[in-house]
Amino acid sequence: MSTDELISQIRKKNSFLCIGLDTDLSKIPPHLLEEADPIFSFNKAIVDATHHLCVAYKPNTAFYEACGIKGWEALAQTMEYINTKYPEILTIADAKRGDIGNTATQYARAFFEDLSFDAITVAPYMGRDSVEPFLKFSDKFTILLALTSNPGAFDFQTKRIEGKELYKQVLETALTYENSEQLMFVVGATKAEYLKQIRAIVPNNFLLVPGVGAQGGSLVEVCRYGLTKDIGLLINSSRGILYASKGKDFAAAAREQALQLQKAMAVEMDKI
Amino acid sequence: MSTDELISQIRKKNSFLCIGLDTDLSKIPPHLLEEADPIFSFNKAIVDATHHLCVAYKPNTAFYEACGIKGWEALAQTMEYINTKYPEILTIADAKRGDIGNTATQYARAFFEDLSFDAITVAPYMGRDSVEPFLKFSDKFTILLALTSNPGAFDFQTKRIEGKELYKQVLETALTYENSEQLMFVVGATKAEYLKQIRAIVPNNFLLVPGVGAQGGSLVEVCRYGLTKDIGLLINSSRGILYASKGKDFAAAAREQALQLQKAMAVEMDKI
Repeated sequence: MSTDELISQIRKKNSFLCIGLDTDLSKIPPHLLEEADPIFSFNKAIVDATHHLCVAYKPNTAFYEACGIKGWEALAQTMEYINTKYPEILTIADAKRGDIGNTATQYARAFFEDLSFDAITVAPYMGRDSVEPFLKFSDKFTILLALTSNPGAFDFQTKRIEGKELYKQVLETALTYENSEQLMFVVGATKAEYLKQIRAIVPNNFLLVPGVGAQGGSLVEVCRYGLTKDIGLLINSSRGILYASKGKDFAAAAREQALQLQKAMAVEMDKI
Repeated sequence: MSTDELISQIRKKNSFLCIGLDTDLSKIPPHLLEEADPIFSFNKAIVDATHHLCVAYKPNTAFYEACGIKGWEALAQTMEYINTKYPEILTIADAKRGDIGNTATQYARAFFEDLSFDAITVAPYMGRDSVEPFLKFSDKFTILLALTSNPGAFDFQTKRIEGKELYKQVLETALTYENSEQLMFVVGATKAEYLKQIRAIVPNNFLLVPGVGAQGGSLVEVCRYGLTKDIGLLINSSRGILYASKGKDFAAAAREQALQLQKAMAVEMDKI
């Protein structure tokens, strides 16, 4: 998928919502557990109920790996379903992978080729030769962790390296990587005040913002500093949508939550 | 597995060799490709040929994920084989995972419970709440990336944060995490000169050292600065052992390479 296609989808749907498919067997409606593949059944229902309100789905691989081979199969099935039925939607493997050249290429193949994801999240700690193998795949996005939304982000990311915070060094250094126009960056919404400074460094790249909702970030604040003339934002919500109800109405409840977020996003887009 | 059990195994075998099972279908002997599960057949032959010469096996998950569900099945089968036939051997999932609390717990379950690994490699970028969920599993090791052996390591890891290199900040900060006695650290062998400084910060924790052999590190140099009275080192070799021959003698050739390393390690252990 190209950036232009993503922007065009955002404008058409008046939404830059990304739904995190962090499907947890202990949290999905109990009646689904009787089905042959509860994870896929849940995902399918959520996707069918929300596809017109969001522009991206982001399964976090941890939840699938925790279920072993069955989880991996459910992930593959979910990807095939989305790519077949809603091919316009951006798919993000929230995998936070990071390894050296040869091995990074294996991960890129796993997610971009075998599972047909459009994008993957990648950790920056190992530097250039752990990121560029992903950027070699054209029409795919590499979403680099910059400033995350968890308390541990303050352990290293906000510490100053040679006078500048590590996450800023990550942003600046990543812009020098080959094919850096295919980079997006993860920026936690719990730190909206940082977004202004981040936009000064990366004025054009899309930012993937988790932490609106369950983790306490404010949509309006994030948009104030993060929106660009080409939108430039994907805002993720996971638990708030997925687990809006534990009853048989879970998909309708999820749609309602997604609709509220989409409406709020449409208001923000009108301000541009 | 406990640290005492690991040390006892090292002393018994006169070896602190870890073999990286980075099994790549494009590199294994062609005659194996005719078998039902070439990856498992290859791993089984390598393990049977080398188990008495090494103390740990370290499959890099990227190589298995790149093969989709079949790869994941081969990994599960390999783990079951090692844990059943050679239960004394430490198994390390070289997964370099890193995610926040709830998600990190899912990864820990995937590798420690579902696949029964004894240890996993973890990336430090997201800080405390991305590492401690792994450390909650008793009798399991969490192996944190500190200083890696690739060129990209110089992008961030060796940069100074408040006067001290990032990798040293990672070591010092990690020692404050709960259950930090279950931590090991990844330290690249291409930077043996750094090992002395690292030992000053973490005098007791085991170090997992990749990069001896294919990546150019020297075993003698690493041992000079890294060995402790309780050994404290696991030195990894992957390609140099796995792909010593592409013929039907590949397992014997792998054993010969492992034997050379084990002998060199025995010499270094005698110096303690």
